[in-house]
Amino acid sequence: MPDVVPLHIIRGVGVRVIDQTRLPGELAELLLADLEAVCEAIEHLRVRGAPLLGIVAACGMAIASQRLGADEATLAFAAERLRSTRPTAVDLHRAIGQALEVARRAGTDPEARRTALWEFAERLLLRQRSRDLAMARHGASLLPAGATVLTHCNTGALATGGVGTALGVVREAWRQGKLARCFATETRPLLQGGRLTVWELREEGIPVTLLVDGAAPSLLATGRIDAVLVGADRIARNGDTANKVGTYALAIAAAHHGVPFYVVAPSSSFDLACPTGSAIPIEQRAEQEVTVVAGRAVAPAGTEVYNPAFDVTPAELVTAWVTEVGAVRPPFSAIAEALDDAGSPLGIH
Amino acid sequence: MPDVVPLHIIRGVGVRVIDQTRLPGELAELLLADLEAVCEAIEHLRVRGAPLLGIVAACGMAIASQRLGADEATLAFAAERLRSTRPTAVDLHRAIGQALEVARRAGTDPEARRTALWEFAERLLLRQRSRDLAMARHGASLLPAGATVLTHCNTGALATGGVGTALGVVREAWRQGKLARCFATETRPLLQGGRLTVWELREEGIPVTLLVDGAAPSLLATGRIDAVLVGADRIARNGDTANKVGTYALAIAAAHHGVPFYVVAPSSSFDLACPTGSAIPIEQRAEQEVTVVAGRAVAPAGTEVYNPAFDVTPAELVTAWVTEVGAVRPPFSAIAEALDDAGSPLGIH
Repeated sequence: MPDVVPLHIIRGVGVRVIDQTRLPGELAELLLADLEAVCEAIEHLRVRGAPLLGIVAACGMAIASQRLGADEATLAFAAERLRSTRPTAVDLHRAIGQALEVARRAGTDPEARRTALWEFAERLLLRQRSRDLAMARHGASLLPAGATVLTHCNTGALATGGVGTALGVVREAWRQGKLARCFATETRPLLQGGRLTVWELREEGIPVTLLVDGAAPSLLATGRIDAVLVGADRIARNGDTANKVGTYALAIAAAHHGVPFYVVAPSSSFDLACPTGSAIPIEQRAEQEVTVVAGRAVAPAGTEVYNPAFDVTPAELVTAWVTEVGAVRPPFSAIAEALDDAGSPLGIH
Repeated sequence: MPDVVPLHIIRGVGVRVIDQTRLPGELAELLLADLEAVCEAIEHLRVRGAPLLGIVAACGMAIASQRLGADEATLAFAAERLRSTRPTAVDLHRAIGQALEVARRAGTDPEARRTALWEFAERLLLRQRSRDLAMARHGASLLPAGATVLTHCNTGALATGGVGTALGVVREAWRQGKLARCFATETRPLLQGGRLTVWELREEGIPVTLLVDGAAPSLLATGRIDAVLVGADRIARNGDTANKVGTYALAIAAAHHGVPFYVVAPSSSFDLACPTGSAIPIEQRAEQEVTVVAGRAVAPAGTEVYNPAFDVTPAELVTAWVTEVGAVRPPFSAIAEALDDAGSPLGIH
């Protein structure tokens, strides 16, 4: 377990979370103990990160069953309200669907349903922690001794509830004594690198250096970086990888400099039904994310903005995908088979 | 002449400038009428942009001769004070040295010296305007009809006092009816793209779209961009080009997508004494430029930062250098010869 624990599930009561919008200035915790509080926290990005959102949504279902009722209609209402918070978050939607299924299987007794829902939320968190650890070990084994790595966005404890995906590899390499330093891009527009990743690593005493996104290629040109480690939001069947905007820039620059580029993501990020990256819808986000920083305008009012949330890195720029079942190198068909063979982890999403 | 005029020289009085730190929120002009006011404006980046700094420094020498005296000792003092404002700004230092020479050649009569210094400042501005126009025409001729281009940082009127370098090409292409749209990177850490470039283009009704630096490769991947246009701070004899950090990222991504990458820079940016890019010193700037935005911390206090002001784009990634004597394509030895042949414009720096 990392020192940073972004959420504690308190069975029968609610979930205590770090308010990520107040980092790095302030480490404030919130107890979310009713459905609206959970929804507000998700909507205002107080909790974020794909795996963490799934766990928080499961908590939201358990909380609703506790506070509002565990009958079919009430749970359907809670599911609908939770789904509306982040319409495109895959893990969140999947967790809500699974929670409804779990409640149904528990029978009609309200107490049995509540228990089942709390247990489901706890199980999701434990499973994420165990997957994170497995990815971290597989990833760390790919790094040389004394490694200096570059990462993007926040893929740490704050994003998953475990050690993180790409940042889990950083943590594990540090624990094994083989990490010299982690460089972290600030990750405009929302600055998760500077606000969250730097904060997490400094909390654990891991040497970290921040840079603006545009400075990464000049850093790669110095020859100091042994590997680039990123997470993923969705991976198509051919290996094309959607992740936070700016990832593709790092992939091109890493390839240009012959630096290994690793995508660290659990099997739940694979969408084998999606043939290639071009089939992945890319959300365009609000102009204000770019034109306003820390409440102050940094571009003229009314400026037109191109603000995709994600970009797609073609499979051929990825050195390996690091999953909980191991690191897989191209061609990507191999990983699809590995996942199918390994007791189909895709089935337990 | 563009609609945006960042400075007016008022002979015998001073220089009126736009306070660029207050853009885009406010269009405020300052009359700089004594040496300290000029130095303060340079030090606080109220005026910036390599060519513009040269012109403002020349104005500073004329103003000093008017207010403090035109004798040798007073001018030497003024030169020293002005040099201290931006120790590494090549155009500024060159203009100050030339101003001292101009004063000496004018004889010992104070009035003659003052006149010579004002005329020198005016000449610098006029020469920059004429060079900018020549570059703009050469550059626009390289673009296809209905072009959509991508640019970085601010290379416009605010940076040169003329139509600008890369942004001069954008203006000229628009004037000729062959430009559809300009995409502008925001250019972290100082956000000159969002604050200045977007403002300049909108002032003139030129369609512009802002994006974060990390989103540029995904934009290039869409196939919408016909050319990338950037300026230069210094170009080595082999063509390696130092420019605002983030330029190299665009060059790699443009090459990856087969999009032409043009460097637009006057002959005064060429340093033929500098053999390659590795000989160009790269200034590391303050951590606060990255960790504080609009007065608010966006990373933990004490964060270590990698913050190079510039990066170096290797010559092989440049499609052509656009200068006032024409566009030159690789190998770069050809441009060195062209400049030497063309009455050695390097001599009139």
